[in-house]
Amino acid sequence: MRPGPSQDDVRRQNLGALLRHVHVHGPTTRAELTTTLGLNRSTIGALTADLSAVGLVSEGAPKETGRAGRPSLVVRPESARVYAYAYSVEVDRLRAARIGLGGAVLDRRDLDRPRGLLAAEAAPLLAGAVKQMQQIVPSDAICVGAGVAVCGMVRRDDGLVRLGPTTGWVDEPIGAALGAELGIDVPVTVGNVADVAAFAEHARGVAAGCDNVLYLYGDVGVGAGIIAGGRRLTGHGGYGGEVGHMKVVLDGRPCECGSRGCWETEIGEHGLLRAAGRSGARGRGALLAVFDAADRGDARAQTAVRQAGDWLGFGVANLVNVFNPEMVIFGGTMRDLYLAAAAQIRSRLNSNALSACLEHVRLRTPKLGEDAPLIGAAELAFERLLADPLDVG
Amino acid sequence: MRPGPSQDDVRRQNLGALLRHVHVHGPTTRAELTTTLGLNRSTIGALTADLSAVGLVSEGAPKETGRAGRPSLVVRPESARVYAYAYSVEVDRLRAARIGLGGAVLDRRDLDRPRGLLAAEAAPLLAGAVKQMQQIVPSDAICVGAGVAVCGMVRRDDGLVRLGPTTGWVDEPIGAALGAELGIDVPVTVGNVADVAAFAEHARGVAAGCDNVLYLYGDVGVGAGIIAGGRRLTGHGGYGGEVGHMKVVLDGRPCECGSRGCWETEIGEHGLLRAAGRSGARGRGALLAVFDAADRGDARAQTAVRQAGDWLGFGVANLVNVFNPEMVIFGGTMRDLYLAAAAQIRSRLNSNALSACLEHVRLRTPKLGEDAPLIGAAELAFERLLADPLDVG
Repeated sequence: MRPGPSQDDVRRQNLGALLRHVHVHGPTTRAELTTTLGLNRSTIGALTADLSAVGLVSEGAPKETGRAGRPSLVVRPESARVYAYAYSVEVDRLRAARIGLGGAVLDRRDLDRPRGLLAAEAAPLLAGAVKQMQQIVPSDAICVGAGVAVCGMVRRDDGLVRLGPTTGWVDEPIGAALGAELGIDVPVTVGNVADVAAFAEHARGVAAGCDNVLYLYGDVGVGAGIIAGGRRLTGHGGYGGEVGHMKVVLDGRPCECGSRGCWETEIGEHGLLRAAGRSGARGRGALLAVFDAADRGDARAQTAVRQAGDWLGFGVANLVNVFNPEMVIFGGTMRDLYLAAAAQIRSRLNSNALSACLEHVRLRTPKLGEDAPLIGAAELAFERLLADPLDVG
Repeated sequence: MRPGPSQDDVRRQNLGALLRHVHVHGPTTRAELTTTLGLNRSTIGALTADLSAVGLVSEGAPKETGRAGRPSLVVRPESARVYAYAYSVEVDRLRAARIGLGGAVLDRRDLDRPRGLLAAEAAPLLAGAVKQMQQIVPSDAICVGAGVAVCGMVRRDDGLVRLGPTTGWVDEPIGAALGAELGIDVPVTVGNVADVAAFAEHARGVAAGCDNVLYLYGDVGVGAGIIAGGRRLTGHGGYGGEVGHMKVVLDGRPCECGSRGCWETEIGEHGLLRAAGRSGARGRGALLAVFDAADRGDARAQTAVRQAGDWLGFGVANLVNVFNPEMVIFGGTMRDLYLAAAAQIRSRLNSNALSACLEHVRLRTPKLGEDAPLIGAAELAFERLLADPLDVG
C-alpha cells in the first residue's frame, strides 16, 4: 500500500476520471457526473472548465427534456478533434485507423500483408495509409498518440516484438519503425493483439463491468488477453497470455514456436485445415470454407470442426480452472470455431472444469468484432492522456 | 480510474502505509519512514502519534549509533500486544497459531486430522487449541482478527469451502464454525492454502518485491497461489489457481475432483505413490520415504520421481507461458518433488516454455517454509487492520 496522493495527484486523478467517463460513456450531464463520480458540483464545474480549456471536452445545452427548471449542462468528449492513430499487424493483413476520443473509428485503411513481411517493410505501408488519412484531418485537431496491436510477444518496456511465430517476426522494433516513418512527435505504444482486443472489450465492449475476463483471439495461432481483478494481466516482461503454446499433447505435432503439441496446433489454422484434408490451403478464407463445408454436410470438414471444437473446450476448461473468469470471449478465428462447435465446447467445459470455477462463466463473441484490435490499440494511446489530461499536445 | 480520494481517505491510506511498513520491515526510524514513504517529517510525526495512541506502535530511542546529533526516534510495531489467530486446515493436520503484528509466531499448536474430518468436527479441536493459547495472552493485548488457510476452493464472499477434493469437504462453513466455537468477537477470514501461502511469501518471504509470482503448493493435491501485477489473483468467485485440475492427459487417471487426467493425478501424492508401487501407503511420510528410496538407489522409486518431475516441469512450462512470472515457488510436497527432480523440471521447462516467457524466471523454495500458510492466514486478518488502522479493537 502506498501513502496517500498529494493534492496535485488528486486533481489529476479527478480530471482523468471525468474524462474517462465521457470517453467511455459519451456525453454526460454535469448532474450525472456529480452523482457517478461522487464529487461535488463545484468540483465537477472546475474540472470541466479545465478540460474544456485544453480542448478535450465541450459543454452545451442538453436536448429538450420537457422538464421544468434549468437543465444540467452536457459534457461531451471532443471526438472529432482529439484522436489517436491505431494500427493492427495481423498475419495476412495490415490495418490503420484514426480513432476519436470516445472510441469512434473516424477513418481507416486496410492493406494485405504478404506472409513474411518484416517491421521495416510494414512500417512504410502503414505510414502511407496514415498520410492519406492526414489529408482530411482538421487543422486544429490534436493527435494524442498512436497504438499498435501485433500478433506476437511484445516486450512491455519498449514494445519490441520478441517473437511472432505466425508472422515470422523475431526482435522486430515495429514501434520505433513506425515512429520514424510517421515523423509525428507522439509516443507509439505497442501491445499484443489479444491483450489490446481484451482491453477494448473490457473498456467498451461485451465485457464492460466484468473484472475477470479471458479473451481468446485466433489469427493463425491463438493468444489470450486476460483481465484479472479488473486489470490487464501482462506478466513480468509483458508476455503473459501465451495460451496457444500450452502443451496439450505430449510429443504432439510440431508448432511454429519450435516446440511440439501446443494447443494451437490443434485449434489454430494449420491444425484445422490439416484435419479437414486441406493442408495446402491457408488464410481466413480457407478456414471459413471448412466451416461452410461442415455446414453443408461434408463429413471430413465436420469431423475436423468437431475435433477442433473439442480441443477448444479442453483448453478453455483448463483456463477456467486456473482463472475462474466470469466471461470467456471468442475473437478472430476462435469466434468462427466457437460458433461452429458450441455444443462440443460446452460439453467439454461441463465435463472437465470444476463446477465452482464454471458456475458464473458466460461464453460470448466480441461486441466490437474485428475492430477490437484497432480500438484497443487506440486505447493504449488514450491511456496516457487519461493518466494526465492537461499534459495533452 | 476512480476519482481521487478525500482527505479522510488520504489520512487512512497514510496510516495504513506507515503501519504496513513497520509490520513488514520491522522497527524503522522516523527519518527512514520520511524517505521511504515520501511524506514530510511533521506528517510522519502525526501519523506515528495516532498509531501510538491506539497501541499499534511504540516509539523509542534507537541503539547507540556513535554519530553526533539528535538521533531519529525508532517506530516499532507492538508485536507482543497486537496479534491475530491463524489456522491451517490440511489433509492430515490441523494447526493453530497466534501471530503478532510484524509476523512473528508467538505461540502454536499442531493436531492430527483424521482424513474425513468435517468443519463441524475440526472447529472444536482448533478452538480448543486457541483456548490453551489464550491462557498466556497478556490482558491488555488486542486480537485484530483470525484467518484460516484451507486445502480447498473458498468462496470469496463468505469463506464457504465449496470443494476440497482431498479433504472430502463440500460446502463446509469453517469460518462460521470457528467463529461460533471461539466466541470471540473478531472477523474470521478464510482463504485457500496456496493463495495465502503465496500472499505470505510475497509480503515477507522469498518473493518480496516480485510482482508476478506463481506459488505451487502441494499437500495431497496441488494448487497455486498467483500474484499478478503485484496483486493476488483470485478470480470471479475466489476459485482461481486450481492448476492441479488442469487436464494433462486426455482420458487419463481418475481424479478426486470427479474428472480424469488432472495434473495432480501425476504429481500429487496418489500418483507418486502409485508409480513407486506403494499405492497402499499415504501421507507426507510415505512420500518422503519414496524420495529417500530414490536417493538410496531404488530403481522403481527413481523412475517414479523422474516421471513426476517430468510432469511437474510440463505443467510449470504451461503456466510460465500463460503467466510470464518472474518467480516460481515450490511449496509443501512440491518442494520435496522439486528438490528431488530439479534436473528434469529445468529440462522440461527449457524445452517446452517460450524463451521470452522463461528468461527471467527464478525457481525457488519457500523462505517461510511450512509456516507460510499460518503467516498468510494471519496476514488476511492484518489486512483489515492495515486498511483502516484506527478502527482497531
